[in-house]
Amino acid sequence: PGKKVLIVYAHQEPKSFNGSLLKIAVEELTKQGCSVTVSDLYAMQFEPRATRNDIVGHLHNPEAFNYAVETWEAYKRGGLSKDLVEEQKKVQEADLLIFQFPLFWFSMPAILKGWMDRVLVQGFAYDLTKANGGGLLQGKLCLFSFTTGGSKEKYAIRGDIRYLLWPMQHGIMHFCGVKVLEPHICYAPEHVSEEKRKEMLTAWTQRLKTLWKEEPIDCSPDWYFK
Amino acid sequence: PGKKVLIVYAHQEPKSFNGSLLKIAVEELTKQGCSVTVSDLYAMQFEPRATRNDIVGHLHNPEAFNYAVETWEAYKRGGLSKDLVEEQKKVQEADLLIFQFPLFWFSMPAILKGWMDRVLVQGFAYDLTKANGGGLLQGKLCLFSFTTGGSKEKYAIRGDIRYLLWPMQHGIMHFCGVKVLEPHICYAPEHVSEEKRKEMLTAWTQRLKTLWKEEPIDCSPDWYFK
Repeated sequence: PGKKVLIVYAHQEPKSFNGSLLKIAVEELTKQGCSVTVSDLYAMQFEPRATRNDIVGHLHNPEAFNYAVETWEAYKRGGLSKDLVEEQKKVQEADLLIFQFPLFWFSMPAILKGWMDRVLVQGFAYDLTKANGGGLLQGKLCLFSFTTGGSKEKYAIRGDIRYLLWPMQHGIMHFCGVKVLEPHICYAPEHVSEEKRKEMLTAWTQRLKTLWKEEPIDCSPDWYFK
Repeated sequence: PGKKVLIVYAHQEPKSFNGSLLKIAVEELTKQGCSVTVSDLYAMQFEPRATRNDIVGHLHNPEAFNYAVETWEAYKRGGLSKDLVEEQKKVQEADLLIFQFPLFWFSMPAILKGWMDRVLVQGFAYDLTKANGGGLLQGKLCLFSFTTGGSKEKYAIRGDIRYLLWPMQHGIMHFCGVKVLEPHICYAPEHVSEEKRKEMLTAWTQRLKTLWKEEPIDCSPDWYFK
């Protein structure tokens, strides 16, 4: 109770299975007394492209545009575009980030990847000049909750889907200092029975009930590659 | 000579190191007698978001929008949006696809991920109803050419960066039936000497000279995870 949750949601259709998972999370976490914010990326028409438009006013080096340098400089002088500042504020306030999306090509849909690319800029999410490598989002938790098109077997190599979680969980969140909870994966909801779908929705509700008691994964290479 | 190459390029700045790598590839491959096409995604303001706008005319199921279903149906009746049809035509004609980009968060920039999400739709790039799993882009080669922000050591776990290539090379290209050449990686061009940068550009030119003699990697889990 009192915890703040940001759900970054990337599906076009409220009536989708992802839409149901979102609804459940909002309802269950609200019921627990959490304050829940949703960034509904498609509804917001969130911009995924990393361009000069993300910097308000002058550039640090207008001769040759370097996105990483320019957003870092802009962050320091309060010159990032309004949509990014708003997302960063939501992240800053959140105790838990939930990413809810359908797996597209072994990864996030582009609109969600664009959220990572543009919101998590240097100065805000990490600082490479710091001795420890510099994750700045310490004290936060995250959870990747996604659906797949294919069955569990389709994604498993050597028995597991974890291989494809490395860039998302380790490369992004762990790098920023965010602790990672076990992913929540619903396999092939479009290809199973209505009964099975209901079971999957119930399982999500059940997991959310005890979510705050969970220990994060250690997020080391061993977790992914054994 | 006579081979067709499509370079899908994702950098905002022509004067960047990625811009130099692109220029070299266009020049060297043209000199070899190849026909080279470039999709300059930022310059095209390529749309990365997978939305209803990708389907011209009526939807198969307007009650609940399902992107995978709708684009498959639209592909079959010739009802995909113009920008997608144009990219698919370029892919169809190409013998070799080169993806040139800066690594963003252990993966592609969102604008390039959006190209994968939107261009490689069912019916065009793969067909899950086929017995063999259905890669439809047989007979083509691809090559991921990218720059990193950090040093080689920063990306290596257990000595190698290959772990993060799994979703891109295997999950996307191999799945579509495209044979994958060794990636071409330029580490931290912004943080090395001018001399070292020149060496990296020369190495790219040299590699391109003998590219057509290369054998593809086998792209099995062993290549990535040993």
